[in-house]
Amino acid sequence: MNEDTVIKEFIEVLRKAPKVALFSHVSPDGDCLGSMLAIGRSLENLGKEVIYYNPDPVPKNLLFLPGVSQITRQLPALLPEVLMFVDCTDLGRVKLTKPDIPKANTVLNLDHHISNQAFGHINWIDEKASATGELALSLVTLLGVEIDTDMATNLYTAIVTDSGCFQYSNTTAQTHRLTAQLLDRGIDLANIHHHIFDQKPLSQIRLLQYALNGLELYAEGQLAVMSLRAEDFHKSGAEQELSEGLVNHARSIAGVEVAILLKEIGVKEIRAGLRSNRWLDVNKIAAQFGGGGHNRAAGCTFMGPMEEAKLKLTGAIEEALKNGRNY
Amino acid sequence: MNEDTVIKEFIEVLRKAPKVALFSHVSPDGDCLGSMLAIGRSLENLGKEVIYYNPDPVPKNLLFLPGVSQITRQLPALLPEVLMFVDCTDLGRVKLTKPDIPKANTVLNLDHHISNQAFGHINWIDEKASATGELALSLVTLLGVEIDTDMATNLYTAIVTDSGCFQYSNTTAQTHRLTAQLLDRGIDLANIHHHIFDQKPLSQIRLLQYALNGLELYAEGQLAVMSLRAEDFHKSGAEQELSEGLVNHARSIAGVEVAILLKEIGVKEIRAGLRSNRWLDVNKIAAQFGGGGHNRAAGCTFMGPMEEAKLKLTGAIEEALKNGRNY
Repeated sequence: MNEDTVIKEFIEVLRKAPKVALFSHVSPDGDCLGSMLAIGRSLENLGKEVIYYNPDPVPKNLLFLPGVSQITRQLPALLPEVLMFVDCTDLGRVKLTKPDIPKANTVLNLDHHISNQAFGHINWIDEKASATGELALSLVTLLGVEIDTDMATNLYTAIVTDSGCFQYSNTTAQTHRLTAQLLDRGIDLANIHHHIFDQKPLSQIRLLQYALNGLELYAEGQLAVMSLRAEDFHKSGAEQELSEGLVNHARSIAGVEVAILLKEIGVKEIRAGLRSNRWLDVNKIAAQFGGGGHNRAAGCTFMGPMEEAKLKLTGAIEEALKNGRNY
Repeated sequence: MNEDTVIKEFIEVLRKAPKVALFSHVSPDGDCLGSMLAIGRSLENLGKEVIYYNPDPVPKNLLFLPGVSQITRQLPALLPEVLMFVDCTDLGRVKLTKPDIPKANTVLNLDHHISNQAFGHINWIDEKASATGELALSLVTLLGVEIDTDMATNLYTAIVTDSGCFQYSNTTAQTHRLTAQLLDRGIDLANIHHHIFDQKPLSQIRLLQYALNGLELYAEGQLAVMSLRAEDFHKSGAEQELSEGLVNHARSIAGVEVAILLKEIGVKEIRAGLRSNRWLDVNKIAAQFGGGGHNRAAGCTFMGPMEEAKLKLTGAIEEALKNGRNY
């Protein structure tokens, strides 16, 4: 089936369904929730009954999304005939397995992840989209439903989240074209950005403080190293996840090619996150220590004290920096 | 003259000119340089001679802009007949005064600042544009020049800078539509973002560290206060300007309505920057101490020690917070 046929069938199934259950993934983010809510509203506008399901609670900073109170964590005893999965690479992302899906049901799968398992009967997968929100906007348009301000707010949140505020490399001309359509609906940008970006837990700011206090530069400023000890997490009250992204403060320093954040995640267990800016393959570095990832973002784990992990990792990176692009 | 007529005449003058001098403002930023370089290239493509003038050196992080080496800090002894000012509210922004401009010359003025003094013979001012880059793109299009990758890189830099990466409230549907056109030209987003956003001086990161070390919360977490002493600037090696924007780290903490940054800028001279998120009018607060600004961003200066300034300002803000929207 070519892409056009897939999309046509996808829309056809939705048009005919009197009732649709929408599923979005665990640890929900702006893309899965915004896309699900906008699609659901458009189906409701067509007179359909809609179930909005997510296995986890909605994060505080997304409670402003229009329609968010309709989302349930309770799977209905009797599923409707049409089930649609939004932004989910596989059934595990909604804590389901294949036997949970009645055989007679039709499974629709809408996603932009290249790793999507194509587990649906109809799979509308487009990995060129920066967010599932882009596909959701196309879907709503194809359903012939007019985008209202609430839908636009949800879809904008989806796109701005997954495109990293239009900074990630998945951002395309189409991303901006679709976003323009949403801004035409008169959404309140300042309010949306405030909710999404300005709701950092104090504990996260404290973690940043501790990470900066330990910031060291090596290799004539090409390597920036930050570390967080177990006591830093304890003092700040922050969970491990909140250290996500802190390494970018080190990466953004002029002259830095590689930045690492070392975290004490257990007794003599150190997790390292590596980022590079332009050329150094941190995947190769991480692989030396049994880890992996991508060229520009990778990770590995050390068993032993922090100082030892730091010594090994900075040594390997300094060597690679010295060898330059030929390492 | 209505807007269409202005634009038509603007284009007409440029079409006829064999030689054009372009001017951009002191302390150059991505918008004035990117716009100037893209316009200049389009005029060169039409066979015209172009002078690119800026009174200040180009900041390091903008040295990647295509064509940047053509910019001169030397005003030519003999100015061409047509002079075009890009992103300049008045002549003072290029360190000129009226007598510097020969009477017979034609002055074109392209800008998006609402405070523009309309000092040109033809003034194409559009304060609805997020950046002068938006107007520059329209101009190049009206000149009938095809946008190449270099021009698109310059114009994207202009727009992404002045729209705060599409986050400022001046961002419109048109901003995104024009950006889509630029992305169609195949620009290297990762490279541009790296140059613009990931070139922070280490001294600025150190300032952030010191500011966070002094972070205090008041009024049950609604007020966040940071302060930087003269010795902090000294230790970090950072100039005053580098503290610009640090207050936003405090503003982005969940629950915070007002954030302030106090800076010791002289002997017993404290400069306060105030930001609010949703409702508190910090302009009113600053005005109580002889300062001013806008509803959401204002500033004032205290003569006296840091502790006294902090006491006065936090007192006034706590009072305002207590009185709520009725204060």
